[in-house]
Amino acid sequence: MGKYIFGVDIGGTTVKLGLFTEEGELADSWEIPTNTYNNGEAIIGDIAAAVLGKMSDVSIEESQVIGIGVGVPGPIDENGIVLGCINLGWSKKDVAKELTDLVHQIPVVIGNDANVAALGEYWKGGGQGYHNVVMVTIGTGVGGGIIINDRLISGAHGAGGEIGHIQVKEHEEETCACGKHGCIEQYGSANGIVKYAKKVLAETDKPSKLRDYEDVTSKEIFDAAKEKDELACEILDDIGELFGVALADISVVIDPDVYVIGGGVSNAGQIVLDMIQKGYEKVAFHSTKEVKFQLATLRNTAGIYGAAKLALSNL
Amino acid sequence: MGKYIFGVDIGGTTVKLGLFTEEGELADSWEIPTNTYNNGEAIIGDIAAAVLGKMSDVSIEESQVIGIGVGVPGPIDENGIVLGCINLGWSKKDVAKELTDLVHQIPVVIGNDANVAALGEYWKGGGQGYHNVVMVTIGTGVGGGIIINDRLISGAHGAGGEIGHIQVKEHEEETCACGKHGCIEQYGSANGIVKYAKKVLAETDKPSKLRDYEDVTSKEIFDAAKEKDELACEILDDIGELFGVALADISVVIDPDVYVIGGGVSNAGQIVLDMIQKGYEKVAFHSTKEVKFQLATLRNTAGIYGAAKLALSNL
Repeated sequence: MGKYIFGVDIGGTTVKLGLFTEEGELADSWEIPTNTYNNGEAIIGDIAAAVLGKMSDVSIEESQVIGIGVGVPGPIDENGIVLGCINLGWSKKDVAKELTDLVHQIPVVIGNDANVAALGEYWKGGGQGYHNVVMVTIGTGVGGGIIINDRLISGAHGAGGEIGHIQVKEHEEETCACGKHGCIEQYGSANGIVKYAKKVLAETDKPSKLRDYEDVTSKEIFDAAKEKDELACEILDDIGELFGVALADISVVIDPDVYVIGGGVSNAGQIVLDMIQKGYEKVAFHSTKEVKFQLATLRNTAGIYGAAKLALSNL
Repeated sequence: MGKYIFGVDIGGTTVKLGLFTEEGELADSWEIPTNTYNNGEAIIGDIAAAVLGKMSDVSIEESQVIGIGVGVPGPIDENGIVLGCINLGWSKKDVAKELTDLVHQIPVVIGNDANVAALGEYWKGGGQGYHNVVMVTIGTGVGGGIIINDRLISGAHGAGGEIGHIQVKEHEEETCACGKHGCIEQYGSANGIVKYAKKVLAETDKPSKLRDYEDVTSKEIFDAAKEKDELACEILDDIGELFGVALADISVVIDPDVYVIGGGVSNAGQIVLDMIQKGYEKVAFHSTKEVKFQLATLRNTAGIYGAAKLALSNL
């Protein structure tokens, strides 16, 4: 009888679940809604019911389940305690213990969702085959996750991979969501790109099709650049240089094999890789210039893959 | 019969050697000159003779030696090949193989000297008791070494821990020794501190005892600050903030438990820690503000301790 792992990715709207074979094949995947009512008190019970229901449906016994990996949208301490998840209504919580108690003591391992997605891309996505992988997730914010010598780095205070808060500009007056000034997230997130573009559009008279939009989006900026709109290209060169500074800093700390670029903004494709790689090559430390750049490939299944891998590696 | 390890630290002028018990006690230490004649062709043979001579002197048999760890002043690739050491005259060289062939196949492990010194401080110095340690070495340059989950991080291209080349200033016109612009090494090394102080002295009329020196040194700047010289204190505040930016960037990548500050400049003592910690607290990401700061304690024996630990961990 085969062995299985469950990978669970808890988001603010849905919980994604995957059933994996021991060899890492995704046998089944599905979603349940995230019930955030009353500080998300039902979420763990709902996940337990979903897991036990699936085991019953496909006739998997408890002894066949190696464990359950879970990605949560918040920081985790060294002992696997969730320190709080604003989106779910959770404060400090021992999610692993609560869940394992509801699934007849099947072991549970918890990770931060961004870190877990990075682990997924390392295992079965854009970082496959490399031992040292930095995932850069560009969406509403800029996040990430770091794998060194095949192990996820969570950090002493759960801040490992919080690469959106590398400082790339001095003397920035606007404040980042984190309270700092000049973080790459302020310029490189979807909103950050739009904000920077609007600033450039206001500061110059250069013609650009970006002026045709009442409220331009980051996708429209990448689309314009693909069509060689000069100002859009200049804007992306600037953003790319700021990413370059951040990634060059990462390289002189941990010197990875590959940067895997994911998140909603990366759906624009190769142009996002090119933007970052061009900026990186301008400012990178000499011996780290040969690092690889890859697009993430697992999209919104990275979380369940990574959660399964987290359980596989730690159980 | 006890087991032993040799720790070897190759510098441009002397090779330091240590004989350690398996428990990590330093039983003996000594130095030999580094013979850089004819591209350093004699160095490996001299080390082999020193090791075999010591074994004979103190009656240690080959079977009692677990291995030899060696720190070299240059980059090492993933396979332990030395990629070149300018100070020694070496180009690409398989130091481990050459040395092991000369010591009757006693196993040899090679590491970069800055990384190896970090491993020493982690094992028996300022980082003792922590699992995630960043060593910051402030001397002629700014270097470092990184231990995560009790393992040294060398990186995919030997650039792990090259933290002196984190960019902390935009638009710097002067070029760092590495070819980049605005690296922390340009402001934070012994020379960098002096250069920055001279610039400030030239730009203001403020009185300062630093004006009494024809050619002020970094030690004299720290001494003046200890005596509350206002301008010296301002200069160190500025340098501290730049270190703060660099270390805050490291913290959002790997989130260590502790920063261990060493190198010649750190001989000024607590004031160096205070300078860096004050700058760090101003700009650090919220969840990483609780990181510890410690002075290095092993001074110039960190290299032999770390080399021994490298052999112990990898053999």
